[in-house]
Amino acid sequence: MEQIERIGVSLDKKLLSMFDKLIAKKGYPNRSEAIRDLIRRQLSGDQLQDPKAQAVGAVFLVYDHDSTKLMQKLTDLQHSHILHTISSMHIHMDEHNCLEVIVLRGQAGEINKMADSLLSMKGVKLGRTNLLATEPT
Amino acid sequence: MEQIERIGVSLDKKLLSMFDKLIAKKGYPNRSEAIRDLIRRQLSGDQLQDPKAQAVGAVFLVYDHDSTKLMQKLTDLQHSHILHTISSMHIHMDEHNCLEVIVLRGQAGEINKMADSLLSMKGVKLGRTNLLATEPT
Amino acid sequence: MEQIERIGVSLDKKLLSMFDKLIAKKGYPNRSEAIRDLIRRQLSGDQLQDPKAQAVGAVFLVYDHDSTKLMQKLTDLQHSHILHTISSMHIHMDEHNCLEVIVLRGQAGEINKMADSLLSMKGVKLGRTNLLATEPT
Amino acid sequence: MEQIERIGVSLDKKLLSMFDKLIAKKGYPNRSEAIRDLIRRQLSGDQLQDPKAQAVGAVFLVYDHDSTKLMQKLTDLQHSHILHTISSMHIHMDEHNCLEVIVLRGQAGEINKMADSLLSMKGVKLGRTNLLATEPT
Repeated sequence: MEQIERIGVSLDKKLLSMFDKLIAKKGYPNRSEAIRDLIRRQLSGDQLQDPKAQAVGAVFLVYDHDSTKLMQKLTDLQHSHILHTISSMHIHMDEHNCLEVIVLRGQAGEINKMADSLLSMKGVKLGRTNLLATEPT
Repeated sequence: MEQIERIGVSLDKKLLSMFDKLIAKKGYPNRSEAIRDLIRRQLSGDQLQDPKAQAVGAVFLVYDHDSTKLMQKLTDLQHSHILHTISSMHIHMDEHNCLEVIVLRGQAGEINKMADSLLSMKGVKLGRTNLLATEPT
Repeated sequence: MEQIERIGVSLDKKLLSMFDKLIAKKGYPNRSEAIRDLIRRQLSGDQLQDPKAQAVGAVFLVYDHDSTKLMQKLTDLQHSHILHTISSMHIHMDEHNCLEVIVLRGQAGEINKMADSLLSMKGVKLGRTNLLATEPT
Repeated sequence: MEQIERIGVSLDKKLLSMFDKLIAKKGYPNRSEAIRDLIRRQLSGDQLQDPKAQAVGAVFLVYDHDSTKLMQKLTDLQHSHILHTISSMHIHMDEHNCLEVIVLRGQAGEINKMADSLLSMKGVKLGRTNLLATEPT
């Protein structure tokens, strides 16, 4: 079970009132939740500077499904790779374009390398990779 | 059918040789593909500065599935929203943590707003949003 | 004079201990200062989404001082522009390369436009722009 | 002297026409210059993933000059540090706030560490760090 601590934070009134407005706009239920989010995000960013950090990554790519060879290669890459592809999702966007989201787990550096291999394939038009450090949240 | 044009680009030898090394490392089949990728990425980034740009977004969030209320709220939010949730994917990461990838389509500004509502929920530990402009690639 | 408030934040022990380690590494004197920084950064990021937000920006560019026309154009641009160039700093890096930091004040959108004009000039090899929202920190 | 090469790039007509519009908006004199910029930026980003890469960095910070101790500490830090502070620039923004731009040269990892020490000081309200790889542009 998680043990909860309560800490005190001093900040000037004006900064607090601006923060309150921002978190209301974003829909946070209270200040603690908003501050925990800021802290978790900073920790995750810091951990990911180490290429050996355990992470989960989503590679998000748009490609032309007419390049049939590409679909085969995408599948092969996912199977051959030392990383565990946890899962992938395929979405038909329009006549020509598909969106594929591929979720990988492993070391941050390895996920980035795999993402580079995916995003550099001919037929892949656009892509992004998102990493989250998983070790100790 | 796409019409292909061929343009000439001048660059100094040293820059070219460094670029060749980088794209080999990333796995690009040739220079044209690598340069097209750079161009598409810049265009997509530029389009997304307009909150009304048509986009597809993936919200990527890690949460504690013990917060059963959260799962209900996540589902409600996806159904109630004016954005089309195209699809979502749920992955069991460990005893406590789930990863959910939610793909949305709509205006960039609306996707960001929806992402804020998702990421600010109690129980959501980490999250990122990825947007790609879809209009004219 | 600033009025200071003190708020309470609940977070679980493990998250707190990881945060404590990170802020020690970064050199923060205490948790409040670290949390205020997170809050200010989030507010500044949020404000800058509005192109009309008051901001100060630093354009940071590396160029070849052999392109003598470039230096003239850089100076002209700074004088002609509706933005106030507050200040600029010129650094000799090596035989060929200079670094110039140009500080501008005005609306975020205008600063970005001016930065684009600077960074797209022939002879400018690399550049970045940094914006900070100034209105209400 | 630089040796210039000319390479050919194939891309489809629609992508080219969108690129032409974007670079006109940004003010580029021609396509080659715009493409060289994309390439240089990608190379610089790639090099900076190595904390030992030679870089030049600008730390950009807003602080309250009423914290007189801070100004002393900022100066001490710049003198004590193994990094060469190349130069710094101080700008009075309003009654309370100063902007300081500190330009450093050294290994990317060291510059980031120094920037952390500067940005975590009490009295520093906002800050950003910008790095450019300098080795082989």
